[in-house]
Amino acid sequence: MDYKIKSRIWIETNGHVLLGEGRIKLLKAIDKLGSLSKAAKSMDMSYNKAWNLVDSINKSAKKPVVSKTIGGKGGGGTIITNHGKKLIQVYNNINSSCWKFLDHQLKELDL
Amino acid sequence: MDYKIKSRIWIETNGHVLLGEGRIKLLKAIDKLGSLSKAAKSMDMSYNKAWNLVDSINKSAKKPVVSKTIGGKGGGGTIITNHGKKLIQVYNNINSSCWKFLDHQLKELDL
Repeated sequence: MDYKIKSRIWIETNGHVLLGEGRIKLLKAIDKLGSLSKAAKSMDMSYNKAWNLVDSINKSAKKPVVSKTIGGKGGGGTIITNHGKKLIQVYNNINSSCWKFLDHQLKELDL
Repeated sequence: MDYKIKSRIWIETNGHVLLGEGRIKLLKAIDKLGSLSKAAKSMDMSYNKAWNLVDSINKSAKKPVVSKTIGGKGGGGTIITNHGKKLIQVYNNINSSCWKFLDHQLKELDL
């Protein structure tokens, strides 16, 4: 039998979800596209839903994760702050090490 | 800030879900109540849905996990096999150690 073990992790602050798989995906899209509306569109998500997610992330985080830029060539956009980039990296690292940990656990077993 | 990290794990065999949180809950209820219909009722689940889950578990597992008993005082019931009990224990153990692992990962971080 080919056993596999899978996981989903999420981080909460003060009882509220800060980051989960969907939020991380949205933050990465914002980082790539530099715009909340483009990021929402790329994920087939309404602008309102994306805005609410970003608002919830910013409210749950210690420091802002997503920030608006004003003016410039394209008339401003949305960027991920340094704190946000750190959180994305932390989430990815914990996720990868969790998968490795679980694979190892499974290999130890005689199922 | 009070950070918490949470996880959900599930085990697959040959690309099909074998065990996840809902399935484990159902198996535990069957084990406790000795009856699939009582277990389904205790979880506010239809008998059909519970039966389909049990059928899917049995088909994905190496050996039967849930088995019917025939006759006896109550006219037969549903029990968890030894292989099933082992799987429940394995799932619980991996889940607990995953939580410990994630808590430890989080403590290492300066968020």
